[in-house]
Amino acid sequence: MDLQALAEILELKCGVTKSSVLLAGVSGGPDSLCLLDALHRLGYAVIAAHFNHHLRPEADEDARRVAEMAEERGLRSTLGEGDVAALAEDSAMSVEEAARVKRYEFLFEQARRVNAQAVVVGHTADDQVETVLMHLLRGAGLAGLKGMTYTSLNPEWDASIPLVRPLLGIWREETEAYCAEFSLQPVTDASNRDTTYFRNRLRHELIPFLQSYNPRIRTAIWRTSFSLAGDFDTVQQVSRQALANCLQQQSKGYLALDLPNLKGLSPGVQRGVLRLAITRLRPQIRDVDYLSIDRALDFIARPPLSGRTDLLGGLSLIAETDRLYLVDSDARLPETGWLKIDLLTPARLEGPGKVIIADDWALIAEWVDAGDRCLIDLARKASPYEAWLEGERELFPLVVRRRAPGDRFQPLGMDGKWVKLSDFFMNVKLPRRARDRWPLVCAQDQIVWIPRYRPAHAMRITAATRKALYLRLERRTSDKG
Amino acid sequence: MDLQALAEILELKCGVTKSSVLLAGVSGGPDSLCLLDALHRLGYAVIAAHFNHHLRPEADEDARRVAEMAEERGLRSTLGEGDVAALAEDSAMSVEEAARVKRYEFLFEQARRVNAQAVVVGHTADDQVETVLMHLLRGAGLAGLKGMTYTSLNPEWDASIPLVRPLLGIWREETEAYCAEFSLQPVTDASNRDTTYFRNRLRHELIPFLQSYNPRIRTAIWRTSFSLAGDFDTVQQVSRQALANCLQQQSKGYLALDLPNLKGLSPGVQRGVLRLAITRLRPQIRDVDYLSIDRALDFIARPPLSGRTDLLGGLSLIAETDRLYLVDSDARLPETGWLKIDLLTPARLEGPGKVIIADDWALIAEWVDAGDRCLIDLARKASPYEAWLEGERELFPLVVRRRAPGDRFQPLGMDGKWVKLSDFFMNVKLPRRARDRWPLVCAQDQIVWIPRYRPAHAMRITAATRKALYLRLERRTSDKG
Repeated sequence: MDLQALAEILELKCGVTKSSVLLAGVSGGPDSLCLLDALHRLGYAVIAAHFNHHLRPEADEDARRVAEMAEERGLRSTLGEGDVAALAEDSAMSVEEAARVKRYEFLFEQARRVNAQAVVVGHTADDQVETVLMHLLRGAGLAGLKGMTYTSLNPEWDASIPLVRPLLGIWREETEAYCAEFSLQPVTDASNRDTTYFRNRLRHELIPFLQSYNPRIRTAIWRTSFSLAGDFDTVQQVSRQALANCLQQQSKGYLALDLPNLKGLSPGVQRGVLRLAITRLRPQIRDVDYLSIDRALDFIARPPLSGRTDLLGGLSLIAETDRLYLVDSDARLPETGWLKIDLLTPARLEGPGKVIIADDWALIAEWVDAGDRCLIDLARKASPYEAWLEGERELFPLVVRRRAPGDRFQPLGMDGKWVKLSDFFMNVKLPRRARDRWPLVCAQDQIVWIPRYRPAHAMRITAATRKALYLRLERRTSDKG
Repeated sequence: MDLQALAEILELKCGVTKSSVLLAGVSGGPDSLCLLDALHRLGYAVIAAHFNHHLRPEADEDARRVAEMAEERGLRSTLGEGDVAALAEDSAMSVEEAARVKRYEFLFEQARRVNAQAVVVGHTADDQVETVLMHLLRGAGLAGLKGMTYTSLNPEWDASIPLVRPLLGIWREETEAYCAEFSLQPVTDASNRDTTYFRNRLRHELIPFLQSYNPRIRTAIWRTSFSLAGDFDTVQQVSRQALANCLQQQSKGYLALDLPNLKGLSPGVQRGVLRLAITRLRPQIRDVDYLSIDRALDFIARPPLSGRTDLLGGLSLIAETDRLYLVDSDARLPETGWLKIDLLTPARLEGPGKVIIADDWALIAEWVDAGDRCLIDLARKASPYEAWLEGERELFPLVVRRRAPGDRFQPLGMDGKWVKLSDFFMNVKLPRRARDRWPLVCAQDQIVWIPRYRPAHAMRITAATRKALYLRLERRTSDKG
C-alpha cells in the first residue's frame, strides 16, 4: 500500500485535513487496523472507536486489543457496545443490518462528542465490489450500482459530519500485507466466513465463481462503479436543475411539482427528479427503491392524470390538474382559493338576502330589474363568483348544499345537455379533494349555479330578460372592506 | 404474450409503421418464429430473412423450414449463407463474433435491396439480461450496462436503416409458449446448450447460480438495464451539449477541443465527451472501451499538458497548450500561424537585406539610426514578428536555422539568465510539433532572436542606443500588398 497515494486520497477525495480530529471506526480486522495505523503515520489526529456487538465469544477480547493498539501509538480510543441480537429480534432487521445501525449510531455520537471533522471507516475496494454486486442482485439503479463514495453525508446519522472511506481503492490483500509489514495483529472474525450472511456468500462463493468468467472481475466491477459514480453525478446535477424548474411549492409534508413540465422531461430525468423529491421529504431513506420510482413514472404517464398512488415510507403521489403533489400521509395539502362548505346541513335563502355558507364565504342574492340595460351583457362579464339567473323562474327557496349521489347538471353552453355532476367536475378539472365540499346552488331540487363554473342552461338569461336574480359569493373577511 | 402490447411497443418504442416492409431476421428458433408470426398477425408487411452459418449439420434443414414457414403465411423469404468458420479462422474473431458479423452484413444488404424501413430481430428480455451480464463481466460503463435498445442505428451496417428489437421486454418462455399455442415448430439448435460459448455459459450456469441469491434476478437485471438506459440518455444529452461547447474544430481525421473548457467538466461528462468524440471519428466502434476512456481522462488531468497518448483504433490524443486534439494516426494537424523553416541548410544574410526562410516567410534586416528618436520606445511596441537589436554588436552574418541539440538561449527580461532552448519552448508553451522547424535567428553562433517570442538579453537596445538593427518577418504572400 502506497502511503503517499493514500495521503492524496485523504486530501483530494475525502477532503479531510490534519487540523482537527478524525474518528476512525476500528473493528480490529486488517482493514481497520491498517487504516488506523496509516492515518497515524500520515500525521492525522485520530481517535479509535470500537463498537462491541456482543455477537461472538471473542468480542470482549477484540475490544481490548483495539484499545491496546491505540494506546501503543499514544492514540485515544473509545469503546461502545450494544445488544445487536436483541435489536434484530425486536425489529424486522437482519442481524447484519441491526449491527450496522447500532455501530453507526455509536460512531456519529462519538464524533459529535469529540467534535470530529469526519468518521473514517476502512471499507476497501473489495467491499466496494461486494456492495455493487449486492445492489445488482437486489435490482438497483445507477444510485446503487455506483457503490460507495469516498465521502458522503448521511442526515440519518449527522447533518454535517461526513463518513469518509479512504481505502475504497485499496484491495483487502493490500491491507493484509500492510498489517504483516508493520506487524499489526488483526483479530480474526470467524463470522466473516459464515456464508449464512449474504455478504459473505458474495465474497466466498459468488466472486470466485465470477472469476471463472473473468479473472480480473474485481477490477472490472470496481472500475465500473467508479465510472457509474461520474454518470450518477451528471444525472443528479441535471435532475437537481430539473427539480428546481418543476418545483411550485415546498411546504411541511409536501412538494408540489408542475406536471406538464415534469412530463416533458426524459424518463431518466423524471426518475432523478422523483428520487430527489422523495429525499427532500425523507432524508433518512438510504436508497430510494427502484420499484417505487417505476410506479411513480407509470402514474405520471397514465392518463387521465387524477387520483393517487402510494409510493414508499408513507409518501403518496396525488395528481391534480397541472400539479403533482408528493405528500406525506398526514400532511394537509394547500386548498388556497377553493370553495368549500363547512355546514353539513344545507344553507337556505327564502328570498333575497345573505346566507353564510362557510367560515369564509357568504352567498348574496338580490333582484335586479333590467330597466333600460341589457342584462345579458352584464351576465357575460360576470366574475366566476357571480351569476345572473332568469327572474321568471321559480328560484326560491335557494339551497346551498354539497354534492349528493346521482347529482346531474345542465351546464350553460351545452345546448341543454344534462351531464353527471362527477363528469362535469372532471371536465372542468376540479381536483378530487375539492369536490365533496364544493357549494352547489339549487332551486326546486335542481342545480342552478355551480360557483366558479357555470349557471344552469334552464336558468340562463337572454336579451329579453327583464328581471334577474343576481347571485354572488363574497369572502366574509372582506365584509369590512 | 400480449399481441396488443407488442403492437404498442412496435409503434411507440420501435417506431415502425405498416406502410412499408420490415425485414425480419429469422434463425428458426422460438424467438424469431414468434416474432415473424406475430408481425404477420399484426398486419405488418414482413420478409423473412434467414442466414445459414453452415456451422451445424442441420443448418440446411433449418433454412428450408424457415422458408416453408414464410410460404405458409404467404410471406416472401430470402436466404443467405456464408462460411463463418473460415472467417473466424482467418480473423481474430470468435466463431460467435464472426457469425454475428456475417449475419448482420447479410440482413442489412437484404434490407437495402428490398427498401425495408428496418431490420427486426427477436432478441428477448433474456437476451437483454445476458447482454448486461456479459458487459458487467467484461468491465463496462453505463453504455454497456444499459444493454440493447428497442431501436438503434449502427452506421457500421447502415446509415439510415435501424435495427429494432420489439421482443426486448418479453421472456424466452413467453415466446416458447406462443410457439406452442400457435403450433409453430421451432428448430432445435443443440449449440445453444454448448457451454464453450460464453453466452451459453451465462445462460445455463451463471444465471441459475444468481437465482440462488435472488429468484427474480432476471427481472431485477432487466429493470436495472431499463433504468440505466434512461440515465445513459441523460448523460449523452449533457455530453453532446458539452462537446458542442468544447469543439473548436473538426476536420478530416481530427477534432480539436478546448482543453480548459474540457478540464472544467465533471469526470462523468468528460467521459461522455470523449466517447462521443471518438465515435465521430470512428463511427464503426460499437463500444468505446472503457480503459481507453480512463487513459484519456488521466491524460487530460496530468500536468504538464503536453505530449501524446494512444487511445484505440489508431486514434491518439495530443495536448497542445490550450487544445486537445483527438487525431487519426495519419491525419495532418493544422499548423495555422506557425512559423517553420523549410530549408534544411540555414539561410544567411551577410548584411542588410532580405532572405527567404520558408515558402511563405522572409526575413528582412535594416539599419536604423536613432536620430532624435528614442529607439527603445519603438522596440517596446514591436509586434511579435519584429525585433530591434543593439547596433553596436557584431550581428552579421545573420543565420536563420532550426534548433540543434544543446541550444541555449538568454531571453530578454530574465536578467541575463541562460536557459535550455527546450525549456524556453516549454515555458512559452510552443507546441512540440512546432519546435523542430521554428526559425532561430543567430549571430556569432548565438541565438539573437526567436521570432514571435524574445530577442536575446545581450542584444537588447537601451535608451542610449543610437543605431539598431531592425529585423522583421514578412509573409511572402503579402509582398504584393
